[in-house]
Amino acid sequence: MKNKRIVSGMRPTGKLHLGHYHGVLSNWLELQQEFECFFFAADWHSLTTEYANTEGIRDNIRDMVLDWLAFGIDPDKSTVFIQSQVPQHAELNLVLSMITPVSWLERNPTYKEMQENLTTKDLSTFGFLGYPVLMAADIIVYKAARVPVGQDQIPHLELTREIARRFNYLYGEVFPEPSALLTETPKVVGLDGRKMSKSYGNAIFLSDTAEETRKKVMSMVTDAQRPLRSDPGEPDRCVAFTLHSLYVPEEKRSEIVSACRSAQIGCVDCKKILAQCMIDTLAPFRSRREELSEKPDLIDEVLANGAVKAAEEAGKTMTDVRAALKV
Amino acid sequence: MKNKRIVSGMRPTGKLHLGHYHGVLSNWLELQQEFECFFFAADWHSLTTEYANTEGIRDNIRDMVLDWLAFGIDPDKSTVFIQSQVPQHAELNLVLSMITPVSWLERNPTYKEMQENLTTKDLSTFGFLGYPVLMAADIIVYKAARVPVGQDQIPHLELTREIARRFNYLYGEVFPEPSALLTETPKVVGLDGRKMSKSYGNAIFLSDTAEETRKKVMSMVTDAQRPLRSDPGEPDRCVAFTLHSLYVPEEKRSEIVSACRSAQIGCVDCKKILAQCMIDTLAPFRSRREELSEKPDLIDEVLANGAVKAAEEAGKTMTDVRAALKV
Ligand code: SF4
Ligand code: SF4
Repeated sequence: MKNKRIVSGMRPTGKLHLGHYHGVLSNWLELQQEFECFFFAADWHSLTTEYANTEGIRDNIRDMVLDWLAFGIDPDKSTVFIQSQVPQHAELNLVLSMITPVSWLERNPTYKEMQENLTTKDLSTFGFLGYPVLMAADIIVYKAARVPVGQDQIPHLELTREIARRFNYLYGEVFPEPSALLTETPKVVGLDGRKMSKSYGNAIFLSDTAEETRKKVMSMVTDAQRPLRSDPGEPDRCVAFTLHSLYVPEEKRSEIVSACRSAQIGCVDCKKILAQCMIDTLAPFRSRREELSEKPDLIDEVLANGAVKAAEEAGKTMTDVRAALKV
Repeated sequence: MKNKRIVSGMRPTGKLHLGHYHGVLSNWLELQQEFECFFFAADWHSLTTEYANTEGIRDNIRDMVLDWLAFGIDPDKSTVFIQSQVPQHAELNLVLSMITPVSWLERNPTYKEMQENLTTKDLSTFGFLGYPVLMAADIIVYKAARVPVGQDQIPHLELTREIARRFNYLYGEVFPEPSALLTETPKVVGLDGRKMSKSYGNAIFLSDTAEETRKKVMSMVTDAQRPLRSDPGEPDRCVAFTLHSLYVPEEKRSEIVSACRSAQIGCVDCKKILAQCMIDTLAPFRSRREELSEKPDLIDEVLANGAVKAAEEAGKTMTDVRAALKV
């Protein structure tokens, strides 16, 4: 029985890569079996850091949602929608802003950290300061019981809990305090060994063709201390091998480990195996993606239905909020 | 021809007194003859300073709107609604927050001033810091051409204009920059000579009965330097006389000035004249208020229709906003 509600959003960065898949999407797929899930494209959130460049946001949303659906998010099981199409997010954000001390936001560790590190972006806006308030609204507007988060997002969720608590304290019990559903996120490295990221140009996309995938895998960095085919290698030092553990079956992988250490296999052949396993694993999803991408109306329909359903649930919460606030 | 749109809101403080009437409402009545007006109860704004005490806000809205309608705001001419019932205010507030630098809000003179003076209230919230953003949203969501403001509100309107300008600069021309329609607001003093204010307990309410009005007028402070009936008085020093200029006809007033200065009239008689003129002037509105207050459904209907009409217009603007933002 589904008695627990989960909310999770992704910023619409466009086509998803393996990092997104193993970091978030595969987790969503598990959650949707067990929980009542609300998955949304967080386009308002994009504006907190990207207000100066909104070009392409619409295509990015579609590309992302296409990946979700192709890889198994089921709109019959989960509510899939765009944040900006559900006005209750903005309404609750406004209400919560009234009870959230500025000091809570200023002491948010990510706030200072991002301002120090992301020097190419203007992060001095009121909206950027307030994004934890919007995040709180996104979650509690559905009275979510749990939120899947990585270790690094625990402080944000704590802020959400504090805001929910403060509302309940001031106006009476309306919101459950959402608890963290800590998700293990294997760090997926890109072709060059850095974190996989679109902006680094080192990503393998879910939507890549078999040919693109093969080419990218073959270009991957391996064990830097194995200059010659005849040198023994060490999978633990090998960038490519981090993906073997995700795509190559256990047994085959053990063989590779021995063969690499004894120089019985070369990196070219080894990566060919990886590429083939990856291509085979992703093939059914990719062909589903192909099919879906030929039906643009279907995505529109999913998102429109999702927005209606989300607004219905969020609307119930806002009715409770208004009653509690006595407005 | 109505080709200019005006937006103006009042915080729902409950029954209006003469200060509100001469300061704002009488101005609205003039504007509604010439402009397309949107008048709203700014209940979200109340939360910026009053989040800890929302008790009675709903009654306050009804009492206030009842005064509006009784004293001549015509829902067939003007759109009358409650801010929180039009979600586009919250949506645009969220969008504008993304492009408004925190520094613009921190340097807002009222922000620091109120924090220094209103020490009994918690003004440290994110919502209080951001109220000029909400105010900007309230205005430009209707693409208002003009905003009636008193001298003291000019800096706020300037901030609204800056925010509108910044949006247009970033995303293309969507918003006209609303210009100030400077309104003269005669300072209405209360019974004790301080500014008329509900919290000072020195107010004459629009909804007071004739009897209450008479009693209050008779208790008004007059010329403090006229201890005896036989002493000559000076209307320029007289608290009560500030109201004579609003309610007693010109000719009668001249007579009083002479009679007071020559001690030919006593303050009791003089205030009786004032009370009677005030009662006569207000009588038709007060009886209309009586009638209206017996039809609670009518207010509900006016506010519901107003919200629909406002949301329709605000919705058009939000369509333009989304198109400009490309979300
Ligand atoms: S053989 Fe395979 S595991 Fe060994 S270094 Fe080359 S790519 Fe890496
Ligand atoms: S006579 Fe009238 S104007 Fe003169 S002091 Fe008295 S109340 Fe004021």
